[in-house]
Amino acid sequence: MRIIVLGGDGFCGWPTSLYLSDRGHEVVIVDNLSRRNIDNELEVASLTPIAPMTTRLRAWKEVSGRDISWHRFDVAENYHRLLSLIKEERPDAIVHFAEQRAAPYSMKSSWHKRYTVNNNINATNNLLAAVVESGQDIHVVHLGSMGVYGYGTAGLRIPEGYLKVEVRVDDEHRIEQEILYPPRPGSIYHLTKTQDQLLFAYYNSNDKVRVTDLHQGIVWGTQTEQTSRDERLINRFDYDGDYGTVLNRFLMQAAIGYPLTVHGTGGQTRAFIHIRNTVRCIELAITNAPALGDRVRIFNQMTETHRLRDLATLVSNLTGASIDYIENPRNEAEENELAVENRQFLDLGLEPITLQDGLLEEVADVAKKYAYRCDREKIPSRSLWRARADREAHV
Amino acid sequence: MRIIVLGGDGFCGWPTSLYLSDRGHEVVIVDNLSRRNIDNELEVASLTPIAPMTTRLRAWKEVSGRDISWHRFDVAENYHRLLSLIKEERPDAIVHFAEQRAAPYSMKSSWHKRYTVNNNINATNNLLAAVVESGQDIHVVHLGSMGVYGYGTAGLRIPEGYLKVEVRVDDEHRIEQEILYPPRPGSIYHLTKTQDQLLFAYYNSNDKVRVTDLHQGIVWGTQTEQTSRDERLINRFDYDGDYGTVLNRFLMQAAIGYPLTVHGTGGQTRAFIHIRNTVRCIELAITNAPALGDRVRIFNQMTETHRLRDLATLVSNLTGASIDYIENPRNEAEENELAVENRQFLDLGLEPITLQDGLLEEVADVAKKYAYRCDREKIPSRSLWRARADREAHV
Repeated sequence: MRIIVLGGDGFCGWPTSLYLSDRGHEVVIVDNLSRRNIDNELEVASLTPIAPMTTRLRAWKEVSGRDISWHRFDVAENYHRLLSLIKEERPDAIVHFAEQRAAPYSMKSSWHKRYTVNNNINATNNLLAAVVESGQDIHVVHLGSMGVYGYGTAGLRIPEGYLKVEVRVDDEHRIEQEILYPPRPGSIYHLTKTQDQLLFAYYNSNDKVRVTDLHQGIVWGTQTEQTSRDERLINRFDYDGDYGTVLNRFLMQAAIGYPLTVHGTGGQTRAFIHIRNTVRCIELAITNAPALGDRVRIFNQMTETHRLRDLATLVSNLTGASIDYIENPRNEAEENELAVENRQFLDLGLEPITLQDGLLEEVADVAKKYAYRCDREKIPSRSLWRARADREAHV
Repeated sequence: MRIIVLGGDGFCGWPTSLYLSDRGHEVVIVDNLSRRNIDNELEVASLTPIAPMTTRLRAWKEVSGRDISWHRFDVAENYHRLLSLIKEERPDAIVHFAEQRAAPYSMKSSWHKRYTVNNNINATNNLLAAVVESGQDIHVVHLGSMGVYGYGTAGLRIPEGYLKVEVRVDDEHRIEQEILYPPRPGSIYHLTKTQDQLLFAYYNSNDKVRVTDLHQGIVWGTQTEQTSRDERLINRFDYDGDYGTVLNRFLMQAAIGYPLTVHGTGGQTRAFIHIRNTVRCIELAITNAPALGDRVRIFNQMTETHRLRDLATLVSNLTGASIDYIENPRNEAEENELAVENRQFLDLGLEPITLQDGLLEEVADVAKKYAYRCDREKIPSRSLWRARADREAHV
């Protein structure tokens, strides 16, 4: 298939592009290097030494014999370049990773809130408007987030996107409806994913655009089979307080002999997936597209759930690191249960890689190997969710 | 109270600003004249001869003795100008009309889709981010739309914003929740109002911003007590296919001896409100603000519902015009029932002005009086909702 990957230089976009190329698809990347530029802004760098884009693509050609082309432009800003590319390439599918994807980054300041909303919503809307204007039947595959659901609906297993509800009309009549799961975003970043859902539902309903939305858990792991083939293909590993996931921060803290910092009680339960499962899920989504006229297809892209304190214990057991409990900067419940339905990908043949199996490799091959590149000052999270907390106390 | 009105030059914004000023509030208008500029783009003009903004404000000063100041900038583009104004004015409330507000205009082309999404979402997000950054406790009053609900949930009276639903956990357990009414927007314009709702819910929950969202029906009528006081204060009357409401188009068609054009069967039922009720509702919303910490307050701002063919009959009876049934350019049901809860405003003392009572005045004082200014070529709606309808037939 011909596939355009928007955001193909990022943490998920890069290994996805290589995986799809390796599987025989023709891949075209669009990326404005915004993620690398944000590294400059935050004065951080990937722990792993990622190569420049042209070096990456040349290395892939040497290793695999396959071409991936790259177009450097901003999908949120340059609508007509996107439309032209779609008209030229006539892709079967477009994978949309072209969004600012860190919750703490989206909360750093009003500028970061506005950048995240403007970038993410315009990128998605430009893509959908361009697909419609092209007149082509293109399957849009979007990386959503488990965060659209919020956390902790007591006792309810989170379904894959749609929720059956009953509405009481009067004493005798009830209406049963299936609706988009009522969104409860916990950050500006997550908010944009809930707004994306409305864009997808609208263009799907009005213009019959075929869409798959993937509500992904926290991704862990760094390398895939493809990115491991050459040092120049290595994937990003973020450990800073904004872009580093909780697990990556634990791994780095362990690797440099720093206590693992758990926010609050560590009772927060989150969903996880390994990057090698992520790239497989993207291909499964592409090759199992909804039919023309079907509603938006929504998958939960995750394989297991863990409490953060259990994760810390797991890393501590593997490495001997100690654990520190510190104040939580986020507006969130200290403890939550989380049960998630993920049958659709399992039914399509996804084989989960568990933390229990894969974590040791991550400690040895990434965290310890590149620990010499770590800037330990960058590990703590500095974004505060509650700028008005003090004011409230005085009202 | 000190009130900033964003979009204070528009069809609702201008009479609201005068009404609030007349009631003794201090009013500051922000408007970039986008609505007048869109008239230039569409090569149309208000049927009523609206005066330039400085003339309007000078006339108001002469007539009432009251000052209204005006700042010309784009709320969606110029965040820091908005933030500075909030810091200087320290308003009690900000009324947010600063959005592109025509469904047909939002569907004209991909440019119009993108302009509407970009303008409306960034305006709302900028406002909310600025209120938070200012550190002030400001009540945000937003003009939403009845269109967020979609039309025609069989048998259900549309509640004011929130819907009680039951979710089945297992055979024995059900969860009852009150959720935002599941959105079903019928155009890109309406879509942005559903995305606005998510912005309000988020900032309200995370930052305790006090918000009232007003889901307004189709506004009819032109003049208020204030705009009638001087010819230079006259309000807009749009009759073109993009910005003219269905009722205004009927009135114009009758005034120039043209048959009333009804799309489809005319069985579509819509909610209506008179502009004099609109301005009263805005003040009621401002003076009955939710408490700090309360969830977003949502009102249905409408007073009656009518089927479009009944409206046409009403205008036909008043004027003797004939009725033409033509093809419907919108993706919508031909016939729908619509029952709407609007108890909150009635309980606060709103006295509805009915079409039956007010329509004759509209025919005589506006449509017939200014019929000489009408460009009859501009009356038909030319926006097509279904660009892909042909393609589908071939798949």
